[in-house]
Amino acid sequence: MNLDVLTQRSGEWLRGTGPEADIVISSRIRLARNLAEFPFVNRASDTVRAQIEDFLRERIEKLQGRRPLTYLRTSDLEPLDRQFLVERQLISREHAEDHGQCGVGVSSEENVSLMVNEEDHLRMQVLRSGMDLDAAWAEINEIDDLMEQEVAYAFDSQFGYLTACPTNVGTGIRVSVMLHLPALVATKEIQKVFQALQKIGLAVRGLYGEGSQAMGDFYQISNQVTLGKSEIDIMKSIKDVVAQILGYERRVRTALVKENRQALHDQVSRAFGILQNAQTISSEETMHLLSSVRMGVNLGLIDDVEIPTVNELFIQTQPAHLQKLRHQKLESAERNIARAAYIRQRLAENNPHTSA
Amino acid sequence: MNLDVLTQRSGEWLRGTGPEADIVISSRIRLARNLAEFPFVNRASDTVRAQIEDFLRERIEKLQGRRPLTYLRTSDLEPLDRQFLVERQLISREHAEDHGQCGVGVSSEENVSLMVNEEDHLRMQVLRSGMDLDAAWAEINEIDDLMEQEVAYAFDSQFGYLTACPTNVGTGIRVSVMLHLPALVATKEIQKVFQALQKIGLAVRGLYGEGSQAMGDFYQISNQVTLGKSEIDIMKSIKDVVAQILGYERRVRTALVKENRQALHDQVSRAFGILQNAQTISSEETMHLLSSVRMGVNLGLIDDVEIPTVNELFIQTQPAHLQKLRHQKLESAERNIARAAYIRQRLAENNPHTSA
Repeated sequence: MNLDVLTQRSGEWLRGTGPEADIVISSRIRLARNLAEFPFVNRASDTVRAQIEDFLRERIEKLQGRRPLTYLRTSDLEPLDRQFLVERQLISREHAEDHGQCGVGVSSEENVSLMVNEEDHLRMQVLRSGMDLDAAWAEINEIDDLMEQEVAYAFDSQFGYLTACPTNVGTGIRVSVMLHLPALVATKEIQKVFQALQKIGLAVRGLYGEGSQAMGDFYQISNQVTLGKSEIDIMKSIKDVVAQILGYERRVRTALVKENRQALHDQVSRAFGILQNAQTISSEETMHLLSSVRMGVNLGLIDDVEIPTVNELFIQTQPAHLQKLRHQKLESAERNIARAAYIRQRLAENNPHTSA
Repeated sequence: MNLDVLTQRSGEWLRGTGPEADIVISSRIRLARNLAEFPFVNRASDTVRAQIEDFLRERIEKLQGRRPLTYLRTSDLEPLDRQFLVERQLISREHAEDHGQCGVGVSSEENVSLMVNEEDHLRMQVLRSGMDLDAAWAEINEIDDLMEQEVAYAFDSQFGYLTACPTNVGTGIRVSVMLHLPALVATKEIQKVFQALQKIGLAVRGLYGEGSQAMGDFYQISNQVTLGKSEIDIMKSIKDVVAQILGYERRVRTALVKENRQALHDQVSRAFGILQNAQTISSEETMHLLSSVRMGVNLGLIDDVEIPTVNELFIQTQPAHLQKLRHQKLESAERNIARAAYIRQRLAENNPHTSA
C-alpha cells in the first residue's frame, strides 16, 4: 500500500451517511487478543516481538481470500507515515510510538485494521459511519472467528481472553462511539454528561483516544469494564447512553435555534467565511471553526458545503496529512499556511452551488 | 429630489478614481459666507431665519442655468432623511440638528452642496474623489463668484469675510482631505502624525467631521486658521502635509507587506470572509473590517471586490442609509441584520470574478 494514495481519499467511516450521522461520526469496536504460545508484548524481547509479528502477518495475509487486507510493517515506516496512520485512526498513538517490530493490516475502505504488537499481540478494530455498532460487531466477530481458526488465543475459562493490561481482560472489547456535541459544549451542559458517564463507568476521550484533547467538540464514549459482562451487554449500555446524549444534544440545538437563531446563524456563517478565506490557520482554530460549520450544515443554516467534506477536513488538516499532501516536512508555521490553502481549495471545490 | 433615488447610487466622490485614491478618499473645500443685510443665524429670530432661507433659496435656484442644483428644504424633512444627508456628507451634523428653517442645494453628482442656515447663512462645499484640491477650489471659487453676483456678502476690508464664529473669519475657507490610514493606525504611528499636525495648526477629525470618531481608520486633515493667509497658501500647507502623510502610510504599508505578508494577507482575507458571511454586524465592526479589506485591495492581496464598492459600503452601511433602503425604521439589532444582508449582497454582486 502506497500511503500517498491515501492522501487522495478518506476512510468510509467519514462519509457521514450512517444512522444519526448529524451527531454520531463513527462507531468503533476493537478486540484485544494475545497468542497463547508467546509472552505478552511488554515482556517479549525484540527477537520474540519479531517472531510474533512474522507469525501474525502470515496469518493476516492468509485471510486475503475472505477478507482482503493490505499489510504494512509500521515499524519500517517513517515517523511521519506512522503519524499519518494515527490521524486516519488506522493505528493507535501507542502503536505508532512502539520501537519493536510491528505492523497493521488495513482494508481498502479503511473500515478494518488489525494491529500487530500494540499493547497486545493483536488488536482488531472495525469502524463504521454513524451509529452502527451492530454492523461493526458482526464484522469484527467474523474476523475474530477467522483469526481463531488460524491461531490459538490466550484464553482462560474463568477470566476469558487474557490481555497485557488487566483492564482489558475478559471480552477484550472496547466499544466506542464518536460524537459531535457542539451545542452541549457551547452551553457547558457537556459537564453534566461527563459526570453521568463517569457514574456508570463509561469513559470519555477526544478524537485521538486516550489522553487526547477533545478538539472540535468531538467526544468518544466507550466502555471501561470488559470483564463479567457480555459483548452484547456492553454494546447495549453504550447504545442506551448514546441515545440519551443524542436526545440531549438535539434538544439543546433546537433551543439554541429557537432562542437565538440569528446569533447562531451568524456564528456558523462567520466560521465558514473565515475557513474560506484564512491564509494561515492553526489546527486548533480549524477544529473549532469546522465544528461550528458542521453544526451549521446539520441545522440547515449553511448549505455551501456538504457533511462528508467537513468530516474529511477534520482528518485531512492534521499535521501528517498536510505534509504527505505536500510531499515535504513542514514546520508548524508552514503547516498553518498549507492548512489554510488546503481548506480554501476544498471548500471552493466542494461548494454544491458552484461545483459541477 | 426624491431621497429614495439616492439610496440606489452614491456620490461621485466615492468612485475612488482621483489622484492618490489608494489613500485619499476625497478632497473637500467649504466656504463660509453671510449676507450683509441679515443678522448671523445664531442671532436671528425664526422669522428672520425663514427670510434668509427664502432669500438664499431663490438665489440658489437662479443658478440653475449655469450650475444645476436640486434644492431641499431640510427643515421640512424627517429626522431620518436629514441623517441620511449627513451620512452622504451633503449636510453637516449641525445643520441636521437645526430647528429653524434651513435647506441645501445639491448637484446631481453630489459634488456640490450649498447649505443655507447652518452656523453661517451660506456654507458652500465642493467634494472631489482623491487628492484634487485644485479642481475643488476652481469649482467652489466659481460658485462663490456666481453667488456674489446675486447677494451682498458680509465683508470687512480689514478682516475679510465675516462669520458667526470668529474661527472662520477671513477667507472663511476650510480645506480638508479625507485619508485612509490603516497601516499608520495598525502600527500606532498615527499618534506621531497627530502630534506633528497639531504643531502646525492643522486639525484631525473622523469621517463625519468635528467630534466624530475616527472609525474605519479614516482621518480628515483640515486647516484651523482662516485669517491672515490666502486660500492658496492654506491649500498649499494641506497639500504639503498630505504628501508627507501619504509617503509615511505607503512606507509603513510596504514594510508590513515585506515583514509579514502572510499575516497581513491573512488578516485582510479573514476580514473579507467575515463581511461576506456575517448574518449580523455592528457599524463599528463593519468599518473596521472594510478598512482592512480596503487596504488589502490596494495592496493587491484581495481581488474579489473593487475599491468603489468598498468606498460605497462605508457610507451605505450607515444607519439612515439602511433604513432608507428598507423603507422602515429599524432598531439597532435590526440594523445589524440588515447591514450584514446588504454587505453580503453587495459583495456577491460586485465580485469581479463572478459578476457579469
